[in-house]
Amino acid sequence: MMSRFAEIAAKIRTFRDERDWARFHNPKDMAIAISLESGELLEHFLWKDSTEVEARIRSHRSEITDEIADIAIYLTELADNLGIDLFDAMEEKLGKNALKYPVSLARGSAKKYTEL
Amino acid sequence: MMSRFAEIAAKIRTFRDERDWARFHNPKDMAIAISLESGELLEHFLWKDSTEVEARIRSHRSEITDEIADIAIYLTELADNLGIDLFDAMEEKLGKNALKYPVSLARGSAKKYTEL
Amino acid sequence: MMSRFAEIAAKIRTFRDERDWARFHNPKDMAIAISLESGELLEHFLWKDSTEVEARIRSHRSEITDEIADIAIYLTELADNLGIDLFDAMEEKLGKNALKYPVSLARGSAKKYTEL
Amino acid sequence: MMSRFAEIAAKIRTFRDERDWARFHNPKDMAIAISLESGELLEHFLWKDSTEVEARIRSHRSEITDEIADIAIYLTELADNLGIDLFDAMEEKLGKNALKYPVSLARGSAKKYTEL
Repeated sequence: MMSRFAEIAAKIRTFRDERDWARFHNPKDMAIAISLESGELLEHFLWKDSTEVEARIRSHRSEITDEIADIAIYLTELADNLGIDLFDAMEEKLGKNALKYPVSLARGSAKKYTEL
Repeated sequence: MMSRFAEIAAKIRTFRDERDWARFHNPKDMAIAISLESGELLEHFLWKDSTEVEARIRSHRSEITDEIADIAIYLTELADNLGIDLFDAMEEKLGKNALKYPVSLARGSAKKYTEL
Repeated sequence: MMSRFAEIAAKIRTFRDERDWARFHNPKDMAIAISLESGELLEHFLWKDSTEVEARIRSHRSEITDEIADIAIYLTELADNLGIDLFDAMEEKLGKNALKYPVSLARGSAKKYTEL
Repeated sequence: MMSRFAEIAAKIRTFRDERDWARFHNPKDMAIAISLESGELLEHFLWKDSTEVEARIRSHRSEITDEIADIAIYLTELADNLGIDLFDAMEEKLGKNALKYPVSLARGSAKKYTEL
């Protein structure tokens, strides 16, 4: 049985190929597209303090959900194109992060991990 | 039984909470982090033509996989924090895209969808 | 007499041509470079509230100044490559912005201009 | 006599203060804005090869000029807010770059400087 993720990856592939868009979806442009979609998500929060961000999430929930989905769709396709299993990649990276930021050092630190 | 995606989302949550990092992970900073990680992915392809991009993917496969994983990890956590089901969001957005870019118009067009 | 800006634009051109880098500096990669350098600036402020941002600016003034300079250098070169006078462009855009955001509407509004 | 750059920086300040926008223009949001404007510039070139990029520059010259101006305006204001002289910063950074990428190493290298 196909996992739900494999199903979506297959749908994305079909969507792209029905439109003959594979020729545009080279890795460099896919990475640009992911970056631009991330910007569209971030734009919802520009000039806003935390209270205004919360209000924005309530008032624009559907738009913000779509922006997150856009990033996820391009990321899924890029991983698929490169033969990368996204779940394996996430689990492996979480393992690396656990070694890089041991709980004993990171916990209770006033500094965020970028400065550990 | 938990899906593999739900398992990973739970792992990400545990990883964060063991380090007491939830207080940093507000939606605005999460969106910034996703944008910055996208930039780290894109940086692999800067100044490179398609042949050089392919060579880079071969020579830096592990690093590129990690960058993709970093984006996916933050995106999964952000969706989780906002109570968004990432799969539902992707499927719904794919449905919207199908309406926005009908095969009959998009297929065989020399223009990419941004200009349809 | 050359303006100081024209002097710097000429220095950037010389720097590039001594290294034979013009062939890399096509508009698309220049735009990617500007976006990546903007990310490096933004990274200084990730996960930080306004007090921590102020502290970061004090503790990393030289690095932040360099990031701003990197963006300015690429932007100056791109404008130069495209035959765009950066000062004229800025003045013209300020004029457009003044029409788009009239003082009477924008002033005292709790909303930022993105929502006017 | 005021340099043209100082004149534009003063105009930007006036534009902002007439609208009472200084309170939004903290360094973190300014850096986000610069990053988002860079994305809007880059979006013109998404999915396009070098021939299509050249065509885009011809067909959208005014829009692309405006995007470049938007970045320059925010960058000028941020530097101004932080008490950074943008010209001094650019010249100092060019000096550092000259040391980092000596002509003898960089010239004729098939690799771009990111990999020197």
